Amino acid sequence: MSKNLTTRAEDYSKWYNELVVKADLAENSGVRGCMVIKPYGYAIWEKMQAQLDKMFKETGHQNAYFPLFIPKSYFSKEASHVDGFAKECAVVTHYRLKASEDGKSVVVDESAKLEEELIVRPTSETIIWDTYRKWIQSYRDLPLLINQWANVVRWEMRTRLFLRTAEFLWQEGHTAHATKQEAIEEAEKMMQVYADFVQNFMAIPVIKGTKTASERFAGALETYCIEALMQDGKALQAGTSHYLGQNFAKAFDVKFANKEGKQDYVWATSWGVSTRLIGALIMTHSDDNGLVLPPNLAPIQVVIVPIFKNEEQLEAINQKVAEIQKALQQRNISVKYDNRDTQKPGWKFNEYELKGVPLRIAIGPKDLENGTVELARRDTLTKEVIAVDAIVDRIGHLLDEIQTTLFQKAKNFRDSHITLVDDYTNFKELLETKGGFLAAHWDGTPETEEAIKQETKATIRCIPIGNTPENGLCIYSGKPSAQRVLFAKAY
Amino acid sequence: MSKNLTTRAEDYSKWYNELVVKADLAENSGVRGCMVIKPYGYAIWEKMQAQLDKMFKETGHQNAYFPLFIPKSYFSKEASHVDGFAKECAVVTHYRLKASEDGKSVVVDESAKLEEELIVRPTSETIIWDTYRKWIQSYRDLPLLINQWANVVRWEMRTRLFLRTAEFLWQEGHTAHATKQEAIEEAEKMMQVYADFVQNFMAIPVIKGTKTASERFAGALETYCIEALMQDGKALQAGTSHYLGQNFAKAFDVKFANKEGKQDYVWATSWGVSTRLIGALIMTHSDDNGLVLPPNLAPIQVVIVPIFKNEEQLEAINQKVAEIQKALQQRNISVKYDNRDTQKPGWKFNEYELKGVPLRIAIGPKDLENGTVELARRDTLTKEVIAVDAIVDRIGHLLDEIQTTLFQKAKNFRDSHITLVDDYTNFKELLETKGGFLAAHWDGTPETEEAIKQETKATIRCIPIGNTPENGLCIYSGKPSAQRVLFAKAY
Repeated sequence: MSKNLTTRAEDYSKWYNELVVKADLAENSGVRGCMVIKPYGYAIWEKMQAQLDKMFKETGHQNAYFPLFIPKSYFSKEASHVDGFAKECAVVTHYRLKASEDGKSVVVDESAKLEEELIVRPTSETIIWDTYRKWIQSYRDLPLLINQWANVVRWEMRTRLFLRTAEFLWQEGHTAHATKQEAIEEAEKMMQVYADFVQNFMAIPVIKGTKTASERFAGALETYCIEALMQDGKALQAGTSHYLGQNFAKAFDVKFANKEGKQDYVWATSWGVSTRLIGALIMTHSDDNGLVLPPNLAPIQVVIVPIFKNEEQLEAINQKVAEIQKALQQRNISVKYDNRDTQKPGWKFNEYELKGVPLRIAIGPKDLENGTVELARRDTLTKEVIAVDAIVDRIGHLLDEIQTTLFQKAKNFRDSHITLVDDYTNFKELLETKGGFLAAHWDGTPETEEAIKQETKATIRCIPIGNTPENGLCIYSGKPSAQRVLFAKAY
Repeated sequence: MSKNLTTRAEDYSKWYNELVVKADLAENSGVRGCMVIKPYGYAIWEKMQAQLDKMFKETGHQNAYFPLFIPKSYFSKEASHVDGFAKECAVVTHYRLKASEDGKSVVVDESAKLEEELIVRPTSETIIWDTYRKWIQSYRDLPLLINQWANVVRWEMRTRLFLRTAEFLWQEGHTAHATKQEAIEEAEKMMQVYADFVQNFMAIPVIKGTKTASERFAGALETYCIEALMQDGKALQAGTSHYLGQNFAKAFDVKFANKEGKQDYVWATSWGVSTRLIGALIMTHSDDNGLVLPPNLAPIQVVIVPIFKNEEQLEAINQKVAEIQKALQQRNISVKYDNRDTQKPGWKFNEYELKGVPLRIAIGPKDLENGTVELARRDTLTKEVIAVDAIVDRIGHLLDEIQTTLFQKAKNFRDSHITLVDDYTNFKELLETKGGFLAAHWDGTPETEEAIKQETKATIRCIPIGNTPENGLCIYSGKPSAQRVLFAKAY
């Protein structure tokens, strides 16, 4: 009944790669660095999308859609943006293929060369701000609160399913405001929306913070982020929200007339989360038996497996299960009944454990006699026998409990992996042994940040929001520091 | 209070282009042939997506996601597919940009040339069937019923918002089956799903049929379609469903072991509808005053406009409207209250007429006194005064009635524009005058079909499903024909 899954202790990275494939979430495609998101993985993404979309709309945002392609020249317009994004990207140079001379294949038609190359969007600030120029004339047109669900492409050299792929799916919010204050509030609000979503729906605890200048989004004046901690002690940036000041408005000449009739540049934010979050989900909760999914995001919350030796038994079970299914569905609990006769119960138990279905009901002839079922929890791997009559309430209760337990367990792990360090030797040792977030003093210079990164591969994940001021000395330079920041190795 | 909208009679094509922009549905972008779908237009697309997605899931389909890029060589694998699709498409040849020598712009890094060019997907049969080879081994893996929501790119030379754009949004279903019969049933079922959706939700009557060999999808053995008729007498293909036989299975070597353990190639279908449907929606129902939306797809079903002269009046109205809004929302009716003081009621009436909001409530101080409101229908432009107490029931009823009326009106127009023709001179004249579908005899040869197309620009839109056999003579060649087919000029 083995799942042939490498354990986390053996090789965490291998465990992750195997799990993604074996749990039917995603796989590599024939196209370098691009993944196929399989139905089970995509169903999780759909649940994430639905919840995020609801939260965006509740905070006043509307969806729209902007072009996949961005003319090359757009990238040169915002100086720091070009450095960050116009590098490793997919470039469209031609618009036609033709039959090869031998007629056996197709070749690029050299006569169909574009005058200006098009870049497949790595992010859409440039094309969107080029559009906003036409949409914004007056303060009456503001704020403009828009989100886009889209695919983007960044030509990564080393890719990993969900975590880093050449093409990925995401949402990107792009908002325009009449004042600096309002734009900052928006960027902070969306960081909070992300934190609420990731904590309450994905059961992943996060630390809210701001990025250092060198870790900021290319073109941003401030980058807010939520940082999560994976089971191997590495951090993962789970979402970012950027205050862009007037940089893009100036680059794309987007002005508005304020209430006094004076022209001013518009203030901007952008914010996004991506399918990368599925990687965080897997690495936060799953175990050596496979995936563990929080009930809020599980495509199947309850699976029912019949235990039977003959047709007659199965029919009796089918009847009882139909009642249970109906009762659960009425409570909006998603339930799957797997009564295939091509696979044995043990195989099915294994399969749904691997796929992280939160609760499993097993029901056999004896259960029918006794009016009971066996209920198994995926997260704790515990079982209980309960009366059929009590099943709906019990399951409703357990789903809530699993959601809470997963969050609490991840939070305990995270909290026990935030270590205060005041000594660089100790810092380096902790990074290699315990891992996690190291709360250390830093002198605030990019030079020190870069030196530490070069020597240890640890980066400053964030300056936590609401950080307690504390005078100290930088662990690297010994210069004065006013607060601790969080270092970690990261995905 | 004029909308400055060209009338349909003046210039139908100009009317359409102006309407799309003025009703805030979409606009051209800075990227040749690519459109920006604005929030109001995208909200309609979201409603379409939600309904279609529900219908796909109810018929057993799951969503997944496949790569945006397709290696060039994949297109050569299915002979007829390459002719149809590997021509006008966006070709990615490089994966990096670098700073230009003067440092002022970015240029393509010639050293970062791809070994094999990547095509931005014009449709995904090839990449998906390359993937299915790994997913399908046995009859137990079948049927495989998958849908993808995605963007695709076809390098069109002449583009029009929604109707024909280089990039567009769509869904593409790709299914795999153990038998020919099952694949044909699937293709027919999805045609029916499309017909139900377009007729019941978009209120657009369609004719179900099959395409002639020369109008088939590249790689299909049979293409089922639904054909709609626009107000200018031109047809529009609203959705297609293809029976692909074993063509793609053979091209990508996708075999399965049947119940007897014998290896056989898998049978396939694919089917899709796109944002083009929004073009059909506009051109079917709208009038010289602007957009007319069927209630099932209207992002705003009811708009409420207050008529007031001072703050005091507005406050009293606000109070009453809050009650009305709440009552409507409890019935799942989407309602917008526009009490901005920056625009006058007349301006607002005009605006929501242009945007096709099905019902408008106007409420002023006199209405408060009398316990009434004024209710206006967008489709008929009629008004009635009704008691506030009756409003929820009346609106529920009217929304149903508008949905039905729009469909019936479009169906009457369509039915009166199907003309039986037995004479080629008459055929040509009707095409230029009345337009619409011409039901005529055809000898069944591609040569005749092509000759008629060259001479008149009319194509065979479809051979209607359930067509009555009728012996006759081909209007062009005079050769025998066993049934009439539908000709029309088309979008």
